[in-house]
Amino acid sequence: MKLRIKDLSFVTGGAFVSIMNSTDAREIDLHPGDRILISMNNKKIISVVDLSEDEKIKKGEIGLFDEILDYLKTRKGYVNVKIAKRLKSLGYIKKKLEGKKLNRKEIFEIIKDINSNNLNEVELTYFVSGCYSHGLSMHEIEDMTDAIVKAGHRLKLKKHPIVDKHCIGGVPGNRTTMIVVPIIASLGITMPKTSSRAISSPAGTSDTMEALANVSFEVNEIKRIVEKINGCIVWGGVVDLASADDKMIKVRNPLRLDPEGLLLASIMAKKKAVNASHVLIDIPIGKNAKIERKKEALKLKRRFIELGKDLSIKVKVIITDGKQPIGNGIGPVLEARDVLNVLMGNGPMDLRKKGIRMAAEILRMLKIKNPKKKALDSLNSGKAYEKMKEIIKAQKGHIFRPEQLKLAKFNKNIHSTRSGIVKEINNKDVSKIARTAGAPVDKKAGIYLNKKLRDKVKKDELLFTVYASSQKRLNYALELVKERNPYVIS
Amino acid sequence: MKLRIKDLSFVTGGAFVSIMNSTDAREIDLHPGDRILISMNNKKIISVVDLSEDEKIKKGEIGLFDEILDYLKTRKGYVNVKIAKRLKSLGYIKKKLEGKKLNRKEIFEIIKDINSNNLNEVELTYFVSGCYSHGLSMHEIEDMTDAIVKAGHRLKLKKHPIVDKHCIGGVPGNRTTMIVVPIIASLGITMPKTSSRAISSPAGTSDTMEALANVSFEVNEIKRIVEKINGCIVWGGVVDLASADDKMIKVRNPLRLDPEGLLLASIMAKKKAVNASHVLIDIPIGKNAKIERKKEALKLKRRFIELGKDLSIKVKVIITDGKQPIGNGIGPVLEARDVLNVLMGNGPMDLRKKGIRMAAEILRMLKIKNPKKKALDSLNSGKAYEKMKEIIKAQKGHIFRPEQLKLAKFNKNIHSTRSGIVKEINNKDVSKIARTAGAPVDKKAGIYLNKKLRDKVKKDELLFTVYASSQKRLNYALELVKERNPYVIS
Repeated sequence: MKLRIKDLSFVTGGAFVSIMNSTDAREIDLHPGDRILISMNNKKIISVVDLSEDEKIKKGEIGLFDEILDYLKTRKGYVNVKIAKRLKSLGYIKKKLEGKKLNRKEIFEIIKDINSNNLNEVELTYFVSGCYSHGLSMHEIEDMTDAIVKAGHRLKLKKHPIVDKHCIGGVPGNRTTMIVVPIIASLGITMPKTSSRAISSPAGTSDTMEALANVSFEVNEIKRIVEKINGCIVWGGVVDLASADDKMIKVRNPLRLDPEGLLLASIMAKKKAVNASHVLIDIPIGKNAKIERKKEALKLKRRFIELGKDLSIKVKVIITDGKQPIGNGIGPVLEARDVLNVLMGNGPMDLRKKGIRMAAEILRMLKIKNPKKKALDSLNSGKAYEKMKEIIKAQKGHIFRPEQLKLAKFNKNIHSTRSGIVKEINNKDVSKIARTAGAPVDKKAGIYLNKKLRDKVKKDELLFTVYASSQKRLNYALELVKERNPYVIS
Repeated sequence: MKLRIKDLSFVTGGAFVSIMNSTDAREIDLHPGDRILISMNNKKIISVVDLSEDEKIKKGEIGLFDEILDYLKTRKGYVNVKIAKRLKSLGYIKKKLEGKKLNRKEIFEIIKDINSNNLNEVELTYFVSGCYSHGLSMHEIEDMTDAIVKAGHRLKLKKHPIVDKHCIGGVPGNRTTMIVVPIIASLGITMPKTSSRAISSPAGTSDTMEALANVSFEVNEIKRIVEKINGCIVWGGVVDLASADDKMIKVRNPLRLDPEGLLLASIMAKKKAVNASHVLIDIPIGKNAKIERKKEALKLKRRFIELGKDLSIKVKVIITDGKQPIGNGIGPVLEARDVLNVLMGNGPMDLRKKGIRMAAEILRMLKIKNPKKKALDSLNSGKAYEKMKEIIKAQKGHIFRPEQLKLAKFNKNIHSTRSGIVKEINNKDVSKIARTAGAPVDKKAGIYLNKKLRDKVKKDELLFTVYASSQKRLNYALELVKERNPYVIS
């Protein structure tokens, strides 16, 4: 059936959706939610079809959302439409939902269809449900990791060793990557780090690095940078190392599901995609961190190590203190200032210590002697800082000193209403306030923490400062401070 | 936050969706997929929000789909928007997904949110997944049935007994309801029958009845009709007896999931809503019917009976032959002609026999003596036919004789290419061809089967006739006949 494109000028956020007139649909016995194969010239795309009962989409027309138009590289003309065959992967998803194990072929088929946008949100949700309800065996996790790696791009570096790190997350300000990469790279070891942007936190490593340099590079550019200077700190989203995974994350959000198997496959696929030989995993635990109990952390640790073995990646897992934010600044610019200060030999001490520890752990994995001393020397001698400047330059940045980074124009100091000891700084409340102030989209916004756990506080002493780029945003954040002050002092 | 309505003039198909400008969203820390509470005058509605990154929805505007505009009863003006609280039901859905049992309060909360359109498709899918993956206990099924009944409308008839019937489906032409209701009502027994429309079949009972009379009535009108003449055959969709259930069916379609617990709750809730005291359930089994194996049918039978006990409804389940279509006509008008012929004392014999058997089973449940004879007498004496005429008149119809029903203008006879015995008539292929010819939307379209299972056929003898309202539709259907001829003759 030949139909004229009607440009709907709307983004669905990923799914390939089209709308047909119900009379046309009836002619080919198409029901809402069925799939059609849309073809134009040599391009073919599978779309989920909705039906228009009235004249918004006329007979002979097909309404297309931006995702399909972008794929077809046109906004007008005629397309051919026919009913698409039932996807084999739907049967496999049903199988998983029934608690049966999937084999390698079935997992590859599902990941292929996720990657090609062939599955709609409801179907993807069924798959995530199956993985969550019944868990994934180590076999399934390995196959899934492989499938994700093979469906995405890869960074083909001819180096050995290649090291990488990952943090499970949940702790604001935890920007150790930006300390560890320069230390490791300054010692001549390859560390091609791809990071994420913030989803529900006030800053991801990519957001923070972006305060200093560009983070969006194609695979070939990343390769050139790393081959030249041993390290990089770039955004993984551009290189599309695990796009199937990114799509699953979207449907996991409404119920905040973290099916362990998917988490493991997702993280390790990204490491495999950069050809890592040694990977350090950081699992922070503590109240209001992502993982609250040690037992849970230990179980996850074992599975990381096992999966590493199957992928021929040496994995070390450290369980760290996640009870409070790391460093003092929360928000891209404030965190970038902390990072530069540490690289220049100053504080914040907790960020400095954690960075040194992690770098040392990586060196220890590589059987390098005196790992802690070597990491410390790199930092104290200024070599790590020089390496960071090289990385910033290679990534087209020009900011090398904390004072070059401007903070948001409006700010408000929050003082303690009593004397005592800081007993708690709630990670989630800190995140929420920094986000409400504008982070991460507004890089200059956020919170600066003046006191940390176990610090003594006098009445009326400064606890923290909120930064925002407009009085209105600042007021929103301050309202939240009244409701949910992250500090407990007693 | 006050926003100006922008009328998007699009139907989402049920969900309450809105689109905000991303700058506005950021101000209240709103992410895609979050829920907002939209209020205007005294109306409040919870909506899932999508974000527009460009100027399609300007700052200060909120794009609303038809479902919300219909609810607000306006297409312009200003609404107030704030972040909605996290729904308690999401936690319960997660619990079910983890394989835990839900208590009455939790099930009621979920059904309430489904009914109020508070859950989006992804969340609803998680709930259906949980029910499918882990099943539902009899306790949960009872609570769900109760919750669905209480969230919908009810037909308050002060009669006893009130009888009802239900068929699990999957067999084309199976219009026994339109035989059974007039027989039972002609004997002075109350049978307020609500039926469905076709979803994936060529005709539901409502579609077929609609060829003779109106089927859309409000609860009060149905009550009046039934109080006067003991029976009715109306569409359940108007009376909204189980709308939570209808919404779940939508997300079950992509994977064709039939979680048994939901099926049971759905059917029995509709029976409870009409205050039924006695219910006959028909489970047809056979290749290409909904249920293919006897073991499966027996398991379902036991659960129906148990659920009936808990709801104080006497349930009888019969397992019937579902190997081939019932009657000769497939499609609303063709089926309505079969029904009228049977009521006037003629064939098709299989439809007549099944109708008599089911009416007799109902009379037997009520402990009425000589049930089979009474059912037969009602039919043979013309009393059932007279009752059907009363029902048609009460439902504002005026067609009482088969020849008053016109068939579609274009038709094509399909003849046998060989001699032999009819070994198979594929239910699914018959449905597909009748649908492609235009049924159920085109009431006059469909198939007339001239031969049934075990009939002798000579080469070139007529097997079936396809009816369609245009040459084009007929051609579509005939192409399908070539691909998937439903007859196997050998």
